[in-house]
Amino acid sequence: MAARSYRVAVAGATGAVGNMMIRVLEERGFPVEDLTLLASSRSVGRELTFRGRSIPVRELREDSFKGIDLALFSAGASVSRKFAPLAARDGCVVVDNSSAFRMDPKIPLVVPEVNAHALESHPGIIANPNCSTIQMVVALKPIQDAVGIRRIVVTTFQAVSGTGKKAVDELEAQVRDLAEGRQPRCKVYPYPIAFNCLPHIGAFLDNGYTEEEMKMVNETRKIFEDPQIRVCATTVRVPVYYGHSESVAVETRKPISVEEVRNLLERAPGVTVVDRPKENAYPMPIHAAGKDDTFVGRIRRDESVENGLALWVVSDNIRKGAATNAVQIAEVLVERGWLGF
Amino acid sequence: MAARSYRVAVAGATGAVGNMMIRVLEERGFPVEDLTLLASSRSVGRELTFRGRSIPVRELREDSFKGIDLALFSAGASVSRKFAPLAARDGCVVVDNSSAFRMDPKIPLVVPEVNAHALESHPGIIANPNCSTIQMVVALKPIQDAVGIRRIVVTTFQAVSGTGKKAVDELEAQVRDLAEGRQPRCKVYPYPIAFNCLPHIGAFLDNGYTEEEMKMVNETRKIFEDPQIRVCATTVRVPVYYGHSESVAVETRKPISVEEVRNLLERAPGVTVVDRPKENAYPMPIHAAGKDDTFVGRIRRDESVENGLALWVVSDNIRKGAATNAVQIAEVLVERGWLGF
Repeated sequence: MAARSYRVAVAGATGAVGNMMIRVLEERGFPVEDLTLLASSRSVGRELTFRGRSIPVRELREDSFKGIDLALFSAGASVSRKFAPLAARDGCVVVDNSSAFRMDPKIPLVVPEVNAHALESHPGIIANPNCSTIQMVVALKPIQDAVGIRRIVVTTFQAVSGTGKKAVDELEAQVRDLAEGRQPRCKVYPYPIAFNCLPHIGAFLDNGYTEEEMKMVNETRKIFEDPQIRVCATTVRVPVYYGHSESVAVETRKPISVEEVRNLLERAPGVTVVDRPKENAYPMPIHAAGKDDTFVGRIRRDESVENGLALWVVSDNIRKGAATNAVQIAEVLVERGWLGF
Repeated sequence: MAARSYRVAVAGATGAVGNMMIRVLEERGFPVEDLTLLASSRSVGRELTFRGRSIPVRELREDSFKGIDLALFSAGASVSRKFAPLAARDGCVVVDNSSAFRMDPKIPLVVPEVNAHALESHPGIIANPNCSTIQMVVALKPIQDAVGIRRIVVTTFQAVSGTGKKAVDELEAQVRDLAEGRQPRCKVYPYPIAFNCLPHIGAFLDNGYTEEEMKMVNETRKIFEDPQIRVCATTVRVPVYYGHSESVAVETRKPISVEEVRNLLERAPGVTVVDRPKENAYPMPIHAAGKDDTFVGRIRRDESVENGLALWVVSDNIRKGAATNAVQIAEVLVERGWLGF
């Protein structure tokens, strides 16, 4: 890590991802000289702990970024749309976890294991991809590099923490309601998520897909810089607290053996292969939760198509799917001297 | 319904599916003259209710089927392997819910909405397909008939009730353990199923697939009488009590519009289309539980392949996935005069 240290801000510090950003900055020893915590006026008065020290939450304002080197944003797309350009104008580099800038052709959309090079020409704002996209491209990058990917059919099993702390609370409350014989109450989701599956993440679009599903299509193409990759996604919310799981069927351009795929993945950065099925060793959300890697298992030939592979990919959606990936982007910026634009 | 009525036995009467068989025979007004309930010696002494009358559970023995016209079996494959041929030898027609005979070329494997005709030449034993196969072929039958299906990529979200009552109890107990700060105890599954996903249903085979996944491949081909259909399955246990969900990507042989598919499915027997996504209307396990139909929604074009379609299919795994399908098979036998062989 560089000897220099940086004035860092977290915008949306009191949310689930913002909180985790603070924790990951500390865990990974990011060179923070000074940490500013920003949130809406509702959260002013709260304090959060960083390196054993209490830091007061301040109101996010237009002038919050003067003198800040790096800001990690996780306060929703509308907040990012308003404040990220102001921060960048003041010379602060923004890593934005919202969907606001992801498909903007001028803004790099980065997963460090996959396309760190795209950071080189950043214009002051860098987009952090959607959680379900991040873990999929980390797992597929070695395959894309080796033989090219023609098509991906993915079905997700997404944790409620992806919706935020209020959804974690809602699942807990619904489980309690049902245990005590009450009707489960629904505020966050339109139906109970306890002991149910909701094939509905983000708003429905005219083509019958959800926003979340189209993020997986469009972000995958942008990150891989390969507009030819075809993706069909079905994204489903399941009663899991932390950790998204994905069933991924891949059709490669050239043939590759399952053994080669396993070997490539075992050497791939950010990937842990857990794939000894006869010993009941496969990735699961309860094991991935709290870890930064993407876990890949159930690696097998998809016999239903030429050059077919099937995988099961699990990662902590709040860590690698959001906070860890954002901090890793910042680490690359520091290492390569790209903090500043 | 025929004027005649029948001496019926349920073997495995005390299990989750056996119990539901009794309930479905009553609900659907099956012409039962006399109901015999059979189970292992452990269950002798218990009584179960049919049409308001208590019936004692008797021990399943080699001579249990003398004078019985129809037996519904749901007591596991080894019990079926031993007792179903004995029952058939005594002139009893067996509808067997286990995997024992499903892939036997002499034994019909039947979903009445799909291949009732296969019952005509039954040799005294008829196999009830696997739960996850049944709901998928009910949903896909109209598409197969209209344009042919080339390939299916399916990922399942399967309820714990498919494993039996002990798994329902285990999920309940784990939720309680976690709520009270204890480690969840695992007896039925190798890991906690509460707030987790297990990509593991049935034993793992040498090809990296599970038994459950290969059932979906092989049974689909047999039921559709189409060995050309290619199927890639990933089957996953989720913390849901009742109702399996399936994300199904289909490649058809000839083109068909999404509107045509929706129209075909709206007229299809055993199917209820729930597909008004902008009104949050889509199938879910908590709505399918307790119903006999297969619910289909999220019907949309899969743009990632020529002639691609994507669907979301949900059904009660204990009803249509097991007990209801078995009773429907018996109804066809009665209606067409095929009870007897």
